[in-house]
Amino acid sequence: MNRHLDNLAEFLKIPSVSADPSHKADVEQAARWLEAKLKNLGFTVEVVSTPGHPIVYAEKLVSASAPTLLVYGHYDVQPPDPLELWQTPPFEPTLRDGKLYARGSSDDKGQIFAHIAAVEDLGKELAINLKFVIEGEEEISSANLAPFVKANQQRLKCDVLLISDGAMLLPGVPTLTYGLRGLSYLEVHLEGARRDLHSGVYGGAAPNPVHAASWMIAKLKAEEGRILIPGFYHKVRPLSEKEKRNFASLPFDQTAFAASIGAGALPGEPGFGVMERIWARPTLDVNGIWGGYQGEGSKTVIPSKAGFKFSMRLVPDQDPGEIFQLAEAYLQQILPAGYRMKVIRHGMGKPVITDLEAPAMKAAAQALEAAWGKPAVFTREGGSIPIVADFQELLGAPVVLMGLGLNDDNLHAPNEKFDVINFEKGIEASGNFMRILAKGI
Amino acid sequence: MNRHLDNLAEFLKIPSVSADPSHKADVEQAARWLEAKLKNLGFTVEVVSTPGHPIVYAEKLVSASAPTLLVYGHYDVQPPDPLELWQTPPFEPTLRDGKLYARGSSDDKGQIFAHIAAVEDLGKELAINLKFVIEGEEEISSANLAPFVKANQQRLKCDVLLISDGAMLLPGVPTLTYGLRGLSYLEVHLEGARRDLHSGVYGGAAPNPVHAASWMIAKLKAEEGRILIPGFYHKVRPLSEKEKRNFASLPFDQTAFAASIGAGALPGEPGFGVMERIWARPTLDVNGIWGGYQGEGSKTVIPSKAGFKFSMRLVPDQDPGEIFQLAEAYLQQILPAGYRMKVIRHGMGKPVITDLEAPAMKAAAQALEAAWGKPAVFTREGGSIPIVADFQELLGAPVVLMGLGLNDDNLHAPNEKFDVINFEKGIEASGNFMRILAKGI
Repeated sequence: MNRHLDNLAEFLKIPSVSADPSHKADVEQAARWLEAKLKNLGFTVEVVSTPGHPIVYAEKLVSASAPTLLVYGHYDVQPPDPLELWQTPPFEPTLRDGKLYARGSSDDKGQIFAHIAAVEDLGKELAINLKFVIEGEEEISSANLAPFVKANQQRLKCDVLLISDGAMLLPGVPTLTYGLRGLSYLEVHLEGARRDLHSGVYGGAAPNPVHAASWMIAKLKAEEGRILIPGFYHKVRPLSEKEKRNFASLPFDQTAFAASIGAGALPGEPGFGVMERIWARPTLDVNGIWGGYQGEGSKTVIPSKAGFKFSMRLVPDQDPGEIFQLAEAYLQQILPAGYRMKVIRHGMGKPVITDLEAPAMKAAAQALEAAWGKPAVFTREGGSIPIVADFQELLGAPVVLMGLGLNDDNLHAPNEKFDVINFEKGIEASGNFMRILAKGI
Repeated sequence: MNRHLDNLAEFLKIPSVSADPSHKADVEQAARWLEAKLKNLGFTVEVVSTPGHPIVYAEKLVSASAPTLLVYGHYDVQPPDPLELWQTPPFEPTLRDGKLYARGSSDDKGQIFAHIAAVEDLGKELAINLKFVIEGEEEISSANLAPFVKANQQRLKCDVLLISDGAMLLPGVPTLTYGLRGLSYLEVHLEGARRDLHSGVYGGAAPNPVHAASWMIAKLKAEEGRILIPGFYHKVRPLSEKEKRNFASLPFDQTAFAASIGAGALPGEPGFGVMERIWARPTLDVNGIWGGYQGEGSKTVIPSKAGFKFSMRLVPDQDPGEIFQLAEAYLQQILPAGYRMKVIRHGMGKPVITDLEAPAMKAAAQALEAAWGKPAVFTREGGSIPIVADFQELLGAPVVLMGLGLNDDNLHAPNEKFDVINFEKGIEASGNFMRILAKGI
């Protein structure tokens, strides 16, 4: 374990922030680090160039008759800002109280590396064909991954696809996820006057795009929690009775959940429980807003420009492209008179759902139970891994989502961490899974 | 005129930016420049130290029986940024097409200097007691002026207060302003969860302070333009029929006004014309908003914090302290459940209105008419000069607001300028005013 932790720390030290062009060389370095690591374990490795950041593809084929497992993950990380809120620097991995703190520790370097460490531990015992696809653009929408998968369908052929880029339900509760939400992410730019105006000289007769943004946001999602885009809920698949029972049976403490994020309330769509709202209902959140004077003190300005970014999490059978269109049409409809608007599309991803009865799912449950000493639970997840839907479509293999993180890992936030016990059990469960698959599937 | 222009240019070369501590010595130098200038004209001058920048006080008393005029202005200027948008450097005064370009040329060095030049032109003809109060902190809220006025009420005693720190209605239209709006400026900080959250993992059951800010802003001012704070309009003094007729008679081209700021519409309170809304009706504008991710691309975060600054322009007989209380109570009322809020008070100022029938007003109108060869118009102004209300209260003298600038002078913006004709006519009108006052008031 110490060797694995040292190796992971080395990986985490590389600030592979895919969103920031100034980190381009670091992203490349992280890919090269994986290349060296996997070559060392006997893999044939290719660092595949793309119009963006490279994809690391590695394979180790033991026998044409053995089952093939494809493991997907990503080596890029979110930007670390705001830096001043980190207790220790984001790219100086630090162990504190059984947790490894660093940007990317849980999302996703720590989780993908658990599978590499499992291969290392198995050594010559490895009896399946193993393929790795580890990309560098997951945090910026994976634009170049689907084309790669499409162009390499034969090469990537597999019996099972394994992904660890998520969280367990609770600490110590091994978890398999059979559903993911999709995503449509938009950005809105508003302009009133062509220049900033003095709020005394013009106040009362000037467009103010911050107000326009506020009116529009208030019309996107009502204060009572419902999303107001016409047609938005139209294709939402209702929860089955079996799923509802399963959700209700899961250990979940709403008070502890609220306390864990320091929230005074858990507002959301009326008529649904917290887990239903996060896992099985679509949402809309403004992710950022700006306009006018943000500095200290007062400035009496009517800003010329304002803008906001918002994302919608989607569930089966919503289609992200269709949601883009519905949202854009609605934005045009609610744009107040006298403002110019520009709408930019960012990433999108399809929602995913996997058959709970697939043999690969059952094997994964067995592997987790052997590692943790207790049965795995089946959950859905509120997050999106847009490429999963593409993988499923292009490779036709069942997807096993074995999240190794925890919900309090501070993903995309300061002080991201990965519990060492999760890393350890993840390595063990991954090795178990490879052993079980070797017996045939 | 050439000598006056040269002198003004010398004054404008001093970068007396009051907001920037690195310009502290320059601000002091501008005060010393005025001191020398006024001493040279026979004034007794004191450069009064304050906890901030000094106040220049000068007086020349000709006779106990003569009327006393107090002229107020400021020698500090706004920061010149963004520097790259200036056609010629802000502190290298440049004449182009009959306009003098420099930071402070119109606001307020050029305007205050017109009165000093008038004294110089009058020479021994000056037959009134004349006092100057020229401060160095107008652009940073005049924190030390009211205490100075309060402590020197006897010394500053006067029959008329003259201020030139504003604009004429249109080029070539001599203007007297008899009303100014007041101000109450607030800042709101909102917090949902204690930390930023992943919008996938928490979206659907997490507070989002950007939405809270938007709902609240939408409840502060409705899209149709009315301010929704209960009691906000309660003390607003309606326009008299005479004022309405006067407003309607003024030359004002709404299309040209909209075009001048590049606005597609001039939204505001329903039921009132543009000039009424700017001059005689209160307004509310968000001056800045922030929250979440403002960088390039997408970040799937639910922000922990958001905030906004907003200011209300007030008219007689609204009281800014009372408006603060009404707004704060309403903010508490409309704060959605599950959010923590902190409200900060910034500046405030009382609205001002001067009696149109006051003899000093009539004298000023006569002085302007003689200089420009056409009658003066009477306007109100949407901006605030908070100290004017203090002067009025503490000194009990009528306030004559004789703006010499123009609305396109680029105050607080790059390429600030002052039309030479306005400087020339301003000097002339100021001299006329002093001669007329000498005949008794």
